[in-house]
Amino acid sequence: MPANTVFMEEMDAFTYRSILDRNPIVFVPVGAFEQHGPHMAMCVDAALTKQMAAAVAERVNGIVAAPIIYGYKSQQRSGGGFHLSGTTSLSAATLIGIVKEIVLNLAEDGARRIVFMNGHYENYQFVFEGVDLALHDLKLSGTDDVKIMLMSYWDFVDDETIDRLYPEGFTGWDLEHAGVMETSLMLLFYPDLVNMDKVVIEPPATMPKYDILPINPDYTPASGCLSCAAAASAEKGRILRDVATEHMVGAVLDEFE
Amino acid sequence: MPANTVFMEEMDAFTYRSILDRNPIVFVPVGAFEQHGPHMAMCVDAALTKQMAAAVAERVNGIVAAPIIYGYKSQQRSGGGFHLSGTTSLSAATLIGIVKEIVLNLAEDGARRIVFMNGHYENYQFVFEGVDLALHDLKLSGTDDVKIMLMSYWDFVDDETIDRLYPEGFTGWDLEHAGVMETSLMLLFYPDLVNMDKVVIEPPATMPKYDILPINPDYTPASGCLSCAAAASAEKGRILRDVATEHMVGAVLDEFE
Amino acid sequence: MPANTVFMEEMDAFTYRSILDRNPIVFVPVGAFEQHGPHMAMCVDAALTKQMAAAVAERVNGIVAAPIIYGYKSQQRSGGGFHLSGTTSLSAATLIGIVKEIVLNLAEDGARRIVFMNGHYENYQFVFEGVDLALHDLKLSGTDDVKIMLMSYWDFVDDETIDRLYPEGFTGWDLEHAGVMETSLMLLFYPDLVNMDKVVIEPPATMPKYDILPINPDYTPASGCLSCAAAASAEKGRILRDVATEHMVGAVLDEFE
Amino acid sequence: MPANTVFMEEMDAFTYRSILDRNPIVFVPVGAFEQHGPHMAMCVDAALTKQMAAAVAERVNGIVAAPIIYGYKSQQRSGGGFHLSGTTSLSAATLIGIVKEIVLNLAEDGARRIVFMNGHYENYQFVFEGVDLALHDLKLSGTDDVKIMLMSYWDFVDDETIDRLYPEGFTGWDLEHAGVMETSLMLLFYPDLVNMDKVVIEPPATMPKYDILPINPDYTPASGCLSCAAAASAEKGRILRDVATEHMVGAVLDEFE
Amino acid sequence: MPANTVFMEEMDAFTYRSILDRNPIVFVPVGAFEQHGPHMAMCVDAALTKQMAAAVAERVNGIVAAPIIYGYKSQQRSGGGFHLSGTTSLSAATLIGIVKEIVLNLAEDGARRIVFMNGHYENYQFVFEGVDLALHDLKLSGTDDVKIMLMSYWDFVDDETIDRLYPEGFTGWDLEHAGVMETSLMLLFYPDLVNMDKVVIEPPATMPKYDILPINPDYTPASGCLSCAAAASAEKGRILRDVATEHMVGAVLDEFE
Amino acid sequence: MPANTVFMEEMDAFTYRSILDRNPIVFVPVGAFEQHGPHMAMCVDAALTKQMAAAVAERVNGIVAAPIIYGYKSQQRSGGGFHLSGTTSLSAATLIGIVKEIVLNLAEDGARRIVFMNGHYENYQFVFEGVDLALHDLKLSGTDDVKIMLMSYWDFVDDETIDRLYPEGFTGWDLEHAGVMETSLMLLFYPDLVNMDKVVIEPPATMPKYDILPINPDYTPASGCLSCAAAASAEKGRILRDVATEHMVGAVLDEFE
Repeated sequence: MPANTVFMEEMDAFTYRSILDRNPIVFVPVGAFEQHGPHMAMCVDAALTKQMAAAVAERVNGIVAAPIIYGYKSQQRSGGGFHLSGTTSLSAATLIGIVKEIVLNLAEDGARRIVFMNGHYENYQFVFEGVDLALHDLKLSGTDDVKIMLMSYWDFVDDETIDRLYPEGFTGWDLEHAGVMETSLMLLFYPDLVNMDKVVIEPPATMPKYDILPINPDYTPASGCLSCAAAASAEKGRILRDVATEHMVGAVLDEFE
Repeated sequence: MPANTVFMEEMDAFTYRSILDRNPIVFVPVGAFEQHGPHMAMCVDAALTKQMAAAVAERVNGIVAAPIIYGYKSQQRSGGGFHLSGTTSLSAATLIGIVKEIVLNLAEDGARRIVFMNGHYENYQFVFEGVDLALHDLKLSGTDDVKIMLMSYWDFVDDETIDRLYPEGFTGWDLEHAGVMETSLMLLFYPDLVNMDKVVIEPPATMPKYDILPINPDYTPASGCLSCAAAASAEKGRILRDVATEHMVGAVLDEFE
Repeated sequence: MPANTVFMEEMDAFTYRSILDRNPIVFVPVGAFEQHGPHMAMCVDAALTKQMAAAVAERVNGIVAAPIIYGYKSQQRSGGGFHLSGTTSLSAATLIGIVKEIVLNLAEDGARRIVFMNGHYENYQFVFEGVDLALHDLKLSGTDDVKIMLMSYWDFVDDETIDRLYPEGFTGWDLEHAGVMETSLMLLFYPDLVNMDKVVIEPPATMPKYDILPINPDYTPASGCLSCAAAASAEKGRILRDVATEHMVGAVLDEFE
Repeated sequence: MPANTVFMEEMDAFTYRSILDRNPIVFVPVGAFEQHGPHMAMCVDAALTKQMAAAVAERVNGIVAAPIIYGYKSQQRSGGGFHLSGTTSLSAATLIGIVKEIVLNLAEDGARRIVFMNGHYENYQFVFEGVDLALHDLKLSGTDDVKIMLMSYWDFVDDETIDRLYPEGFTGWDLEHAGVMETSLMLLFYPDLVNMDKVVIEPPATMPKYDILPINPDYTPASGCLSCAAAASAEKGRILRDVATEHMVGAVLDEFE
Repeated sequence: MPANTVFMEEMDAFTYRSILDRNPIVFVPVGAFEQHGPHMAMCVDAALTKQMAAAVAERVNGIVAAPIIYGYKSQQRSGGGFHLSGTTSLSAATLIGIVKEIVLNLAEDGARRIVFMNGHYENYQFVFEGVDLALHDLKLSGTDDVKIMLMSYWDFVDDETIDRLYPEGFTGWDLEHAGVMETSLMLLFYPDLVNMDKVVIEPPATMPKYDILPINPDYTPASGCLSCAAAASAEKGRILRDVATEHMVGAVLDEFE
Repeated sequence: MPANTVFMEEMDAFTYRSILDRNPIVFVPVGAFEQHGPHMAMCVDAALTKQMAAAVAERVNGIVAAPIIYGYKSQQRSGGGFHLSGTTSLSAATLIGIVKEIVLNLAEDGARRIVFMNGHYENYQFVFEGVDLALHDLKLSGTDDVKIMLMSYWDFVDDETIDRLYPEGFTGWDLEHAGVMETSLMLLFYPDLVNMDKVVIEPPATMPKYDILPINPDYTPASGCLSCAAAASAEKGRILRDVATEHMVGAVLDEFE
């Protein structure tokens, strides 16, 4: 078996238990299964978040739980919308349940420092609820020393980096769905799952300041991408990973050490 | 991107949509995150089932959805028990929800022929409930042409093969947790995630004819394995895969063609 | 009122409370309301299990709670299927709730040794979940001395008895739905609810190794029976009861004394 | 098997199906498992309601489903309170689920005229919710010809009968818990489950105009009875049954014919 | 800000916290959004209960939480029925959830004496369940000194007052929907939301002794009122308020002081 | 009763029904009950949103439903945190339920154009889920012409206005909790519920880029305000209202006319 892997999926249980004894920070990647345009595979949100979590975990001697693969319904203004075929989503209740139960299991194993790293904009509030319900349950059982961080990795890309990577202007993380950031990171981590030849050249989507339900498909570009990935590169991916990792490591250490 | 992959996780949405147009059989692997002794990684149930589903999908021109990674609570008589650290489980309600919502999403995409392939003994009834609830919902919406199979891959290993692979006698699929079958298949599909040197030599566990809750840890061997994997080999894995695949292909074609 | 009855339904509350003071084993029969062919009443699963529980309770100085009358959806391979008119079933969520709440009530009364005796194949996993949720709740409240057994009574019929009662071969407990075992026990306990003249003579059902949903009615014999009850007799019922009771008493005493 | 029984529990499925063909009124008795003082068994609410339902069913050529044995939490002002040992209750969610699912099953079988007959004061609102949720679900599936009555049998005892049976004054149905009405009906239907020698002679309980939670046990008489059953008799039971049956038959025929 | 207001909605958090320090009785008004005939606004149940709660709170130095504005489904025999347009209702599960969560929040703030004052007949059982679930949760967390009263304000109008205000006979609180009591209280508290010219003159509704679902609209008067409000007056409102307040103050002090 | 009120709470049911006949846009304000520092009452979120909804409704001939008074748990980075006494919050499940059921009721009344106007940052995703679940249910019943907008009113304040009202720089809507915007609008609509003398002079809170649970109280200023309200004025409130209303009216008309 792989020595020194950070991924719980690749560990046997005895190794995991000996690692738990030293109270590691446990990262739980939260993704989604969602269309990401014609140029990327649908696994992006879980796959990237797993790698970003690993990058941080390696730096803080932590480990990475199996990712949450399916996420909350894709919303039009941040993911194109759940009406798009391929996007396979969970309800609020189910996602909350998964998060809650993973926390309870990890805490039962002895984990006391947990980070939910989110990679799908729409998930955040439901992860929050799941964590809060789990902590309520733990408190009832007399366990009050579990501390949990919730973060989305893109929030740790600093303004300077944004200016550098988006010289023509940055339209916000919500429109980055299948855009330069995600594509660059995929080129870095999973180049086989990107086909830059299929990138559609188009201006960023213009989204209203509200949601309409049922979704009006006209608001989403036919590509399913909310901004153009043509300027993506593995090098930008490396920069994004390094910058975000650096800041996440800092935040995690600030909170947990 | 990989050409002709069966894995939805590796497809872009446009490729997926064009495949959906020919009404493929969609396989959903259902695993678990569970200790599998000192000699195997904890991802076994999801990882193997994903491969078994792929083996069948390739033969019937089908595709494989992203697996359900976390499963129902490990029970002592078939998985050693959920009290064992590392085993990370979902409640009935949450697993039912995941299954139900995946069905609804796939059906919305146009899938009409779905196979839930189970790789964790304890999951079956909850997968059944999730599928039934989804079909009830689909019926209400006027969709009554979705047909779903539920199977556990080991049920398709025939008696002749069992006699051949277990010359000293077969103690039942329930005790095969982390035993010869799973270990052989892991040696075939993921040799890096097995360490045969760590296999514990011990007689098969003797389990009562009932469950006790809270779990009495004494009933589970310290290894967490319910039978000994020492006789496992990649070659046996190949035989198991081939035999089960052959019979699953037959069953799937019988039902869907 | 009946003196020395084991049935809580026939006790007044004061008698019950005095019995509870001596920490009796409390049996909860879990049945179902389900077609059992043209030759038996639909109450079989609850009615038999109540009697089997009483037979064990009498031997261990225990008591029997009011049965759970409705059970989980009949599945085709073990009960003919929930599509059959007469079969009246509960969802997973509701059955789990009933089990959980009965445990909490009994524990509140002071019961510390509880046995859920199952008489409907499909129920088992949901009873397990209900018991586990209740014990989690009890643990939160500081009650950690409640111990619960879960069993299906047929698992206690030994191989020797099977050989004796099924001289032409035994096809498995799943196909015993409305077959020799259940019919023999009904002839023993409730002869008025059996009409042997209506037994359909047919070979045992041939069931696939998987489930199909929506149910394909063609797989279930028109009788609704999965094997033929013609060889049933009250005498066989007596043997089955005595053997299963003997082994259940042994198991219960092993665990609780 | 019993000829012409009204009880579904005693029918085989084929007989049931032939009865369903003539669109019978199906009665579902809703009881509770609850202390009823030192002089009566704890099965009173389900047992009596089953008999009352049968009395009406026989008159209108209807049938009686298996009763709902466990009911909602006993409240202090109508049942003494759920804190009393022996009383074994369900939550709102679970009782609602049972009712909903029974309606859906009966409707699937073809039943179009259903009566929920309640025998435990506290159940009523939850039965209402379960029925409403089921009808909502049926409406979605295009079934809009199911009609359901909800009643409590005591509401059909007329004022004249009350004056006759309670010459010293009537304190209301809520205080009749384990009092003259229930005891008289038990003496009529199940004399073996009553022991008049154990009736406690005491004035009716004085209950506040509100509920207090957690329950203040001081408000409930030690006997658990809210009024004295000393004046009960089988003859009064006969009168109560006949009068209530007469009026229920009238109401049922008014609605359904 | 208003000095000495009893309404939490009008307090700033710091004022609230200083009041909580003296362990006040906290009243939670539970209303409904429901048609009340052509002569009254649809806010009646929440609006009146808020005022009645304030009247009691002022007398016992208590405070009044923000009301629960939406309530359980209007039933035909006490509110005309939920089929009537304008009536906007919650399910059992949702109302139970609101009540439970308000209790948990107030208890977390330090409140130990809480009164749920109900103003919509149909709500009561669901408020009871919500309170009981909350207290169960609090007990698990070791908080066992929260005491909660549940009451409907009309239960505190005494017989003498009823005789005085209904000289032609009183038909029961259930038929008082949009009748003399509610209209008189609205004339007292919110005269602008009543138009006596629109009162329909009609005899009280004749309701069956049971419910029918789906609702048969014929049983509800076209006005939506179950009894005639023509005799209502602000003066009667004042009497009703004063009498009910007096008795509620007595009950609250009896329980809490 | 008030003529031409937009508030459903002030309408009688008959007036409401006649308005519904002309297919009005129905606005549902979604608030929260939450501490807003020492200078404002705790009703802010519901009270302001109700007024903003009315301002838009008046312009588009719409009506305003009774507000949702309690909202989702206050989060530290946008509301100071749910640990602060006075803040009284609902769980995700309950808020989703309220939203879903209000939609179903309004649709049943005939409403086809609905706007959920949000006034509490944390609510948005749960309102989205509730609306989506309701629309799914409506679709099953064959109702597919209900269209729903979801918006937060502050998103309609344009950049120019922000520059004008925040000459010293704008720190984002999340930090506007109890800051200039909310306080200015309260001064406009409810001057009696503001006390500018109690405004705490302090720099805006510095919040981390993540959440920590359990909440670390140190991150929230003692005032509970995330930015200083000293610069608030009724005049700014008027500008904010007018600008946001203007843009909301435009958006609503774009979608619905």
